[in-house]
Amino acid sequence: MKDLESLSASQAAKALAQREIKATDLLLSCLDRIGQRESAVKAWVSLGKENALARAKTLDKGAIKGILHGLPIGVKDLFDTYDLPTAYGSPIYSNHYPSTDAVSVALMRQAGGIILGKTVTTEFASFKGGPTTNPHHMKHSPGGSSSGSAAAVADFMVPIATGSQTAGSIIRPASFCGVVGYKPSYGKVSVAGVKSLAPSLDTLGCFGRTVGDVALGVAAMSGDHALSIVKDLHRKPRVAICKTADWELANPDTVAAIALARFTAEVIAKGTVSDLSLSSEFDELRQTQTRIMLSEMSRSLTFEREHHSQKMSAQILKQLSDGAQIPYAQYSADLLHAKQAQALIADLFTKQIDLVIAPSAIGQAPLLKDGTGDPVFCRIWTLLGLPCINLNIASNANGLPIGIQLIAGPGQDQFLLSAARAFALAMPDPVLRDQAS
Amino acid sequence: MKDLESLSASQAAKALAQREIKATDLLLSCLDRIGQRESAVKAWVSLGKENALARAKTLDKGAIKGILHGLPIGVKDLFDTYDLPTAYGSPIYSNHYPSTDAVSVALMRQAGGIILGKTVTTEFASFKGGPTTNPHHMKHSPGGSSSGSAAAVADFMVPIATGSQTAGSIIRPASFCGVVGYKPSYGKVSVAGVKSLAPSLDTLGCFGRTVGDVALGVAAMSGDHALSIVKDLHRKPRVAICKTADWELANPDTVAAIALARFTAEVIAKGTVSDLSLSSEFDELRQTQTRIMLSEMSRSLTFEREHHSQKMSAQILKQLSDGAQIPYAQYSADLLHAKQAQALIADLFTKQIDLVIAPSAIGQAPLLKDGTGDPVFCRIWTLLGLPCINLNIASNANGLPIGIQLIAGPGQDQFLLSAARAFALAMPDPVLRDQAS
Repeated sequence: MKDLESLSASQAAKALAQREIKATDLLLSCLDRIGQRESAVKAWVSLGKENALARAKTLDKGAIKGILHGLPIGVKDLFDTYDLPTAYGSPIYSNHYPSTDAVSVALMRQAGGIILGKTVTTEFASFKGGPTTNPHHMKHSPGGSSSGSAAAVADFMVPIATGSQTAGSIIRPASFCGVVGYKPSYGKVSVAGVKSLAPSLDTLGCFGRTVGDVALGVAAMSGDHALSIVKDLHRKPRVAICKTADWELANPDTVAAIALARFTAEVIAKGTVSDLSLSSEFDELRQTQTRIMLSEMSRSLTFEREHHSQKMSAQILKQLSDGAQIPYAQYSADLLHAKQAQALIADLFTKQIDLVIAPSAIGQAPLLKDGTGDPVFCRIWTLLGLPCINLNIASNANGLPIGIQLIAGPGQDQFLLSAARAFALAMPDPVLRDQAS
Repeated sequence: MKDLESLSASQAAKALAQREIKATDLLLSCLDRIGQRESAVKAWVSLGKENALARAKTLDKGAIKGILHGLPIGVKDLFDTYDLPTAYGSPIYSNHYPSTDAVSVALMRQAGGIILGKTVTTEFASFKGGPTTNPHHMKHSPGGSSSGSAAAVADFMVPIATGSQTAGSIIRPASFCGVVGYKPSYGKVSVAGVKSLAPSLDTLGCFGRTVGDVALGVAAMSGDHALSIVKDLHRKPRVAICKTADWELANPDTVAAIALARFTAEVIAKGTVSDLSLSSEFDELRQTQTRIMLSEMSRSLTFEREHHSQKMSAQILKQLSDGAQIPYAQYSADLLHAKQAQALIADLFTKQIDLVIAPSAIGQAPLLKDGTGDPVFCRIWTLLGLPCINLNIASNANGLPIGIQLIAGPGQDQFLLSAARAFALAMPDPVLRDQAS
């Protein structure tokens, strides 16, 4: 019974449900791994060892509680937890104990999950990074804002961890850390009890090491438990590569990843993969997303700016001041533009495409000193509210992972998971194929 | 300088901005009124007199801070406040002090508003009523869930107060208490920091005694300050009466109110007012709203049910258990149905109608012992996400107010306020015309 920490969430969930392994042993393995590696990775803000162990013992004795029975979970420190401090990545909240769980956390516990601790987030899920390092190379960033969750899962400290995305905060760290990251459709998971950054964009999801893992996580977080069973693809999907208007920013690693993705996609499409070039209505969408985010941030963090601005970074204060400069009429026009683009893309998915493949990030994880990376390749998909999954498709010459994202039509989360599994199985590298299970 | 408490929010805001009255005097008048009447009305959960007085003094000395400068505000006890306890209408949270303000509260303070206290809400904004009475008749309910806010404004305790609507919790109590209630477009006001009941439906708004009052309130809560200036109607609106599929439930008071509303609407439409009978796609929408609400409630209150069910009413536990029985696939289908209906109504507003007039409630406020009233006439408009304003159009034989609601197309909040003002000005009763200013 060693190396339990290396089981994927779906493998572990199956073994736990069949009483082949104990929740307590799995938890101890994870704690062991954290003990060995945390000083290097710095993924955690806090650990609730005693509570987690007590809970594991209870679960081992009782009936199977749900789809996450006995699974240790890392929770991004943007999510409220009633038994662990919650600081939202800001010294303003360094002694903050919420009186309740975020709805998604309560649902994960109800499904039998064990909240092991809180993972590092950037300041209010924006750009000011924390101490977390990239498990593949300590001088590099794990990405942000869900830095600790991506790194903890990549480093086998925990099989599953929650994240949130407003620009590119799930897909980008998943790409940098070489794990599966799943941002479901906008609105799929209730954001109640998670610090609000930009309500029109904020979307909750999770990280795992396989497609099955993230399916389990979001199934529990949303209450849509049927999502945990990833079905086989029942039809030949119409697949397109979308390089987006920002393709010139992609570096050679990402260019190679997309070429490899095309090759892989041809396997699941059983034929040609088309190129999707978005119409002119989409050209400005990245700027639209940026303005909506900044405008909403400037309102969402009003209390903090009015009462605690001295505890906020210059970086975020600049964002808030930029956001406050955007005229409300511009913001309204941007929301309308987004709504029109959402209708267009819905139509396009209905008529032409089932699955889009696009870059997850510009390239490899940046050096820690250079920040958490640019979310440029995620902004439009977040604004469009579409479900997205990052898969690790290669490692570059520096040994750093490179991801690509799969994107499905609005609300097509079940299909996206099936497509992602099929895609992973079609990868030439046998190790990366393990992401399928 | 007496009777300041009887000034509308817009009158008071103007006088404050021109330094004709002092924030301190207005506040003292409100406190005086509360002192006289609170034992009968029971609108308040808590008052923050000292903080409010200190704030009023500061505002009187300093520059004009914003559109709400010096206005005393009642905040529904579903909204987090950093300086007042917040119980969400539940004994579970009887000693709960949030660490921050709800975003909408922070924005009201930033605009110069003075948070005077917290008003009674039903348990988690559902149906279990609090102690508040209807200021027009103490044996009757003020409606729910925003019971205290509607009653406090109706009773001249405060010129403006916040509310939230998931089924009919702004429009219904406004109708029962004879005040102006404004539920803006879905998403107009950030719900962050307000206890979540059903995220697809929850919408924040406010109560005032005039159209200008609620325009001011939502302008501040949303950050769309241009909304505070209610413009004249620049065109002849196309107006329709929509009795909805539930018309048979309307009692004679509501039937008479709609007849009077038609007469009044003909004045602003400068001619005929049509009848809108919604197509079959809308017939089931009330049931759809009910299922979405119950299904989402069952997830939103997971933490409370798991940890504190003994402190929850039988009524709400029944709702949660009913909600948990609804299959997720049914819930998904309901959301899709709602989305389709939203697209249909948007199209209808573009092509045929500018303004819809509909019942606000079945009839007069029910007796306290009979609960907070039926939200049946509000459910579909909430689900459709359309902006709605309740105006008091008559008093019945018992001296109880009867309201009607005006409804505009998606995002047409500015137009709705203009239309509501024009409508109020066209009312035959000169006293009710005061709602226009």
